[in-house]
Amino acid sequence: MNKPIPESDFKTPEVTTGSLPASRKVYVAGDLFPDIRVPVREIDLHPSANEPAVPVYDPSGPYTDPAVKIDVEKGLGALRREWVIERGGVEEYQGRAVKPEDNGGAAGKYLAREFSNLRAPLRGLTGKPVTQLEFARAGIITREMEYVAIRENLGRKKMLENAEQTVALGESFGAEIPPFITPEFVRDEIAKGRAIIPANINHPESEPMIIGRNFLVKINANIGNSAVASSVEEEVDKMVWATRWGADTVMDLSTGRNIHNTREWIIRNSPVPIGTVPIYQALEKVGGVAEDLTWEVYRDTLIEQAEQGVDYFTIHAGVRLPYIHLTAKRVTGIVSRGGSIMAKWCLAHHKESFLYTHFEEICELMRAYDVSFSLGDGLRPGSIADANDRAQFAELETLGELTQIAWKHGCQVMIEGPGHVPMHKIKVNMEKQLKECGEAPFYTLGPLTTDIAPGYDHITSGIGAAMIGWFGTAMLCYVTPKEHLGLPDRDDVKVGVVTYKLAAHAADLAKGHPAAQVRDDALSRARFEFRWEDQFNLSLDPETARDFHDQTLPKEAHKVAHFCSMCGPKFCSMKITAEVRDYAAGLSDNEKAALYPEEANRGMAEMSEKYKEMGSELYLEAEAVKKANEGL
Amino acid sequence: MNKPIPESDFKTPEVTTGSLPASRKVYVAGDLFPDIRVPVREIDLHPSANEPAVPVYDPSGPYTDPAVKIDVEKGLGALRREWVIERGGVEEYQGRAVKPEDNGGAAGKYLAREFSNLRAPLRGLTGKPVTQLEFARAGIITREMEYVAIRENLGRKKMLENAEQTVALGESFGAEIPPFITPEFVRDEIAKGRAIIPANINHPESEPMIIGRNFLVKINANIGNSAVASSVEEEVDKMVWATRWGADTVMDLSTGRNIHNTREWIIRNSPVPIGTVPIYQALEKVGGVAEDLTWEVYRDTLIEQAEQGVDYFTIHAGVRLPYIHLTAKRVTGIVSRGGSIMAKWCLAHHKESFLYTHFEEICELMRAYDVSFSLGDGLRPGSIADANDRAQFAELETLGELTQIAWKHGCQVMIEGPGHVPMHKIKVNMEKQLKECGEAPFYTLGPLTTDIAPGYDHITSGIGAAMIGWFGTAMLCYVTPKEHLGLPDRDDVKVGVVTYKLAAHAADLAKGHPAAQVRDDALSRARFEFRWEDQFNLSLDPETARDFHDQTLPKEAHKVAHFCSMCGPKFCSMKITAEVRDYAAGLSDNEKAALYPEEANRGMAEMSEKYKEMGSELYLEAEAVKKANEGL
Repeated sequence: MNKPIPESDFKTPEVTTGSLPASRKVYVAGDLFPDIRVPVREIDLHPSANEPAVPVYDPSGPYTDPAVKIDVEKGLGALRREWVIERGGVEEYQGRAVKPEDNGGAAGKYLAREFSNLRAPLRGLTGKPVTQLEFARAGIITREMEYVAIRENLGRKKMLENAEQTVALGESFGAEIPPFITPEFVRDEIAKGRAIIPANINHPESEPMIIGRNFLVKINANIGNSAVASSVEEEVDKMVWATRWGADTVMDLSTGRNIHNTREWIIRNSPVPIGTVPIYQALEKVGGVAEDLTWEVYRDTLIEQAEQGVDYFTIHAGVRLPYIHLTAKRVTGIVSRGGSIMAKWCLAHHKESFLYTHFEEICELMRAYDVSFSLGDGLRPGSIADANDRAQFAELETLGELTQIAWKHGCQVMIEGPGHVPMHKIKVNMEKQLKECGEAPFYTLGPLTTDIAPGYDHITSGIGAAMIGWFGTAMLCYVTPKEHLGLPDRDDVKVGVVTYKLAAHAADLAKGHPAAQVRDDALSRARFEFRWEDQFNLSLDPETARDFHDQTLPKEAHKVAHFCSMCGPKFCSMKITAEVRDYAAGLSDNEKAALYPEEANRGMAEMSEKYKEMGSELYLEAEAVKKANEGL
Repeated sequence: MNKPIPESDFKTPEVTTGSLPASRKVYVAGDLFPDIRVPVREIDLHPSANEPAVPVYDPSGPYTDPAVKIDVEKGLGALRREWVIERGGVEEYQGRAVKPEDNGGAAGKYLAREFSNLRAPLRGLTGKPVTQLEFARAGIITREMEYVAIRENLGRKKMLENAEQTVALGESFGAEIPPFITPEFVRDEIAKGRAIIPANINHPESEPMIIGRNFLVKINANIGNSAVASSVEEEVDKMVWATRWGADTVMDLSTGRNIHNTREWIIRNSPVPIGTVPIYQALEKVGGVAEDLTWEVYRDTLIEQAEQGVDYFTIHAGVRLPYIHLTAKRVTGIVSRGGSIMAKWCLAHHKESFLYTHFEEICELMRAYDVSFSLGDGLRPGSIADANDRAQFAELETLGELTQIAWKHGCQVMIEGPGHVPMHKIKVNMEKQLKECGEAPFYTLGPLTTDIAPGYDHITSGIGAAMIGWFGTAMLCYVTPKEHLGLPDRDDVKVGVVTYKLAAHAADLAKGHPAAQVRDDALSRARFEFRWEDQFNLSLDPETARDFHDQTLPKEAHKVAHFCSMCGPKFCSMKITAEVRDYAAGLSDNEKAALYPEEANRGMAEMSEKYKEMGSELYLEAEAVKKANEGL
């Protein structure tokens, strides 16, 4: 634990680079801002498919662009620095000096190497718009807004132009996903507080992305060293690795020593927004003793992290003194680290939380850097038994109050949610969040739908995540197989990310996102036509798909064979279906009617009955909806 | 493929035996039938917990009872043979002789070794009850019925007696789960066709279990050799392995050669019901050419398998000639193997399916052995695009007709369901199934909620499985990580089973099964109190939980340490919560009121308002429901 770092270990972090299989990174320019280059990953299909490349959302940054030379020592290009400066309203200034306690007092051979390529921080001036929310309210479309509009539109245009394409209408529970995302729509959603673009002006390396109910469901991956294990190198590698597989944001939850230096390496190399829980570092600064925390130490930590470029802060300002005793009879009390730190502080001092009493100052500070709020759920349930109890909902109501205050100050806000919740109690969480928090984006951890499967909590929570994503949650915080048991390694991070990508995608499909089904359909066609390589390449994890196939049928020839290992070469259901299809296609309508009089009669009778029931106009509309729902 | 089997490989299958960690198998006797011994696994907790052992459902059979000597050569004890004979109405007779085509013509060194310990089969006589449905209708409670009543009641009695225990009411969508299961309730549910006990009179080795919406959600694991890979030994091992981790039934989906001999070994050693798809073997008998299938070959196969003791047959009798052209425009056509065989046969002969035209004869035959129907969904969607289309629902309506016919003949029936279905289209599947099929139990494969994650389809489908289980599906057919890619090995079987156990359990919780939360609460208390060993032992997969923990903190001392690897020893949220709890417990009510006047006022005002809104009577009832829902 906190072992000395040998000189030989001061090495440049190694990260994974290169394209994903059959993938090309292309860039789309803006209409309003022709200089922006929005990345899209296009997956090429086998020529026999006779289909265009499939565009997919790509949060992996320059690491998957073979044309970009990656130098982790220098960090990524400062893409957005010019945008921010051009907009004005900011000043460059001499940032806060790094203090020994920022790295937990680590010195000499215990101190992780500093990132060398530092920039002076920017800070917003008062009276001029700095945050994306302030620009949106002022009617100004930023480069970030057009960027995310283009990013969200993947495949939509093509889909709308292709009348043959099935559009699943879905059930979005009141979300208003438009057929096509315009920069103006993005601006409007941000102005209403229904979406955020987490984009600290000091994290110019990040590629803008949006979190909101009317956009693609996003996922977050947690990384971070702890007092017990892991190093700077591992964490930078994990960050790049997580985005390679699809993480839309990354939270650095480091504890222990070297937090400052670790974070600098991560942010300077991160193409996605970085979130933190500043109270973790503040606690390290006071030697791990919660009651020794002060507003001054906390405030100083916020400035330190805002200057480094953290894009959103989890702040547990809803853990109020009056709510703490509500957790006393719980099965698992307070399981949030931030929540329990603040609870201990409140009780030790018999005082209201300093996060709550200083909330307006926090807002002023975060506004100056456009750090978004992620209002933490410090009283989230840690077990099925504690789900949806008074403590949880009392805090949620307070987060609603705080949302209004943060909005008043021009800050972007999202709200964190549970936790452990059985399926029948999930929906009310979403409904209450929308109501209490004025439709600010919801950002949930899972929820886990049972407590009995440690080692499989990516799955117990993936179930809850898919459901709450469908109901309207904008971002899903991943859970890895190691949850409750240990620190995730590289493999765990990948499994967690892919599990949450599939849950988020299942939610997009169910919400009726207009472009979501493009990838499912392309993959299903590949499957049906035995284009094995296309099937691998279109999947969320081509490596694993290929490995699993090869475990049973390792030969290269089997990847072009028109059969799979389940049925073998002689009999194959998909092959037979192709024959059935050829046969059916050869039948004329008259032949069909003669062959299947019963079904034809049934269909006619049913339609006639419906027509009578509903009246002709209603009928037509209902039939269109029904057809779309049934995928006809 | 179908390699010769070397003499040295003719060995006794090796299977995994022995208790699961900290577990004892105990047996409960019946009240009506004191001779029945119903297995329960009890998980012992650490003395410091001061809690009784936690009883869990145990489908693993004698393999986990150290007192039973396992001899795979002889098979398991014929538990139910005497029960069947004692009830009467059956005759022992000279069974059908094994024919070379039963093993796909394998001979000499290609033929898998025969199971030697064969019994003469039993067959029901006409005019006397043989099936569990016939007994139930006659008002007779069988040993099987009392057995499953006791089995389903795990922990319920204790829970009901303990008024302190939180009972989650859940949302069961019209299911009627009683607080306590009586043998009479079981009989009544079976008589109504709402539940089945798959129990072929020639599979006396099986321990009775029940499948129905008002019982615990069950899971099935598929095994089986294929033309491409695997052996008898592997399949017997997989069967035992699957039940060890919780499979409630096992389907033997073997194709290729040696199907007969493989199945004999599996059934004679299986403590759970075995299902098959007889058309697979019938197809092998006609050289893999679908159009050469005949009713006579199929009928002979049904008798062969019924005599061996298969407990339920998947029969795709709903794939009717008039429906086949409805699949022509699908993205993935007909993906069911059975469905595509029958479709090909129908088209080749321009005839209605022989399974449909001979359905009454099939019923007569299956009744004589009490083989349950699993009416197959041969037209299930194989992709998101094809979900809930006319082909799928036309077949489901036919399955409803066939259910009535099977019931008329005294046969037990369940209905198979999809497949690939996005989340927003899942519920209508359940609703339509209940309506069309007279509440016969639903048995679904997943459904998979997206197509884009091959390699993770245990998860894409686990999401759909948990949801449809909640909505009322009685048994969930597992999907392994190898789905669509290859044949599952031992590890895949385990991951598939555990994933489906957690999905089924999440469904039980959400339905409000009275005993389901006992295990969650026990595990959560163990987690909160840092009883690491108890946490591992109570989990669905103790081995994996322990391994994951030890990857980060390998030392034995860490398993009694009051901290985990996420936060390290100095800071721990759970430790802080314990302090908060001690503190809160020390406060008097007056002190609380003084400390938290706001919350006290809020609570009073809210209650008073509600009281006015709802009237006193309504209020009390609503409040009770609300409290229960919130876990207060």
